[in-house]
Amino acid sequence: MLHQAIKVISITEELICDQICEIIESCGATGYTLVAASGQGSRDKRSRTARGSINDDFANIKIEVIVHDKPLAEKITDQVVTQFFGNYSGITYIEQVEILRPQKFWQGE
Amino acid sequence: MLHQAIKVISITEELICDQICEIIESCGATGYTLVAASGQGSRDKRSRTARGSINDDFANIKIEVIVHDKPLAEKITDQVVTQFFGNYSGITYIEQVEILRPQKFWQGE
Amino acid sequence: MLHQAIKVISITEELICDQICEIIESCGATGYTLVAASGQGSRDKRSRTARGSINDDFANIKIEVIVHDKPLAEKITDQVVTQFFGNYSGITYIEQVEILRPQKFWQGE
Repeated sequence: MLHQAIKVISITEELICDQICEIIESCGATGYTLVAASGQGSRDKRSRTARGSINDDFANIKIEVIVHDKPLAEKITDQVVTQFFGNYSGITYIEQVEILRPQKFWQGE
Repeated sequence: MLHQAIKVISITEELICDQICEIIESCGATGYTLVAASGQGSRDKRSRTARGSINDDFANIKIEVIVHDKPLAEKITDQVVTQFFGNYSGITYIEQVEILRPQKFWQGE
Repeated sequence: MLHQAIKVISITEELICDQICEIIESCGATGYTLVAASGQGSRDKRSRTARGSINDDFANIKIEVIVHDKPLAEKITDQVVTQFFGNYSGITYIEQVEILRPQKFWQGE
């Protein structure tokens, strides 16, 4: 059986990954996913070298967490933007998803 | 022209990637996407080392497949959970997407 | 405050990544995200070696961009399919997302 939930995605500099994960954990999520990323943002152009060294310059990180409702999702995105995106490049956004086994995603249920 | 479809996402240990891809193929999907991932789950903390060695420890895998309807999506997620998530760490969930060229995504249409 | 937007995802050969990014930029987006990917498509099987060398063969690329409406999203997907997917392997699709700070995602607003 599927349950409605919200995925929060943040794409930012790898340097502040741990601090964003701490925000996520402080909001009660039991897990998150990290993927190495590159790209271009509104602040500056990320360089990308030729194929072969593609792994060397994925210096951004995509952090995904699934939470049970939009207020909690907005709490995370607001904290990420307020605490970090004045000084670091990044975007954050949310998506509707449907999950199995909600007890795997957050505590206390 | 865009067509409604469902994306099934599984994030789990790289060790069982091939077996999950076999489930996906047995359900008639013609393709899937794999991305190296890391993170923390409800079972245990995935370690992540400092920048520079980021690629070494992306030992999880994110497997995405697009299928044409929710019953097929649920068939895949149910099989993945039943066969693997008793013994391996992982989550699986679905998202609504809209696709071009549905004949590229599944067989027999 | 969250704003409705559309995420356009293209997964294709790394070889044409720069050209797809040029299409995205020509449509007014201020940024995009790149993630190394592997997988199997309807054209051929992507080989994947054993764990340990997983980073060597992520020769596909997943390109994500967030735009403000579906007509612009379809403009990008149509150009990508028309210009490249006759000769290169790939899929493209869209998802509904909700974003903070829309001025970070596109120009002129």
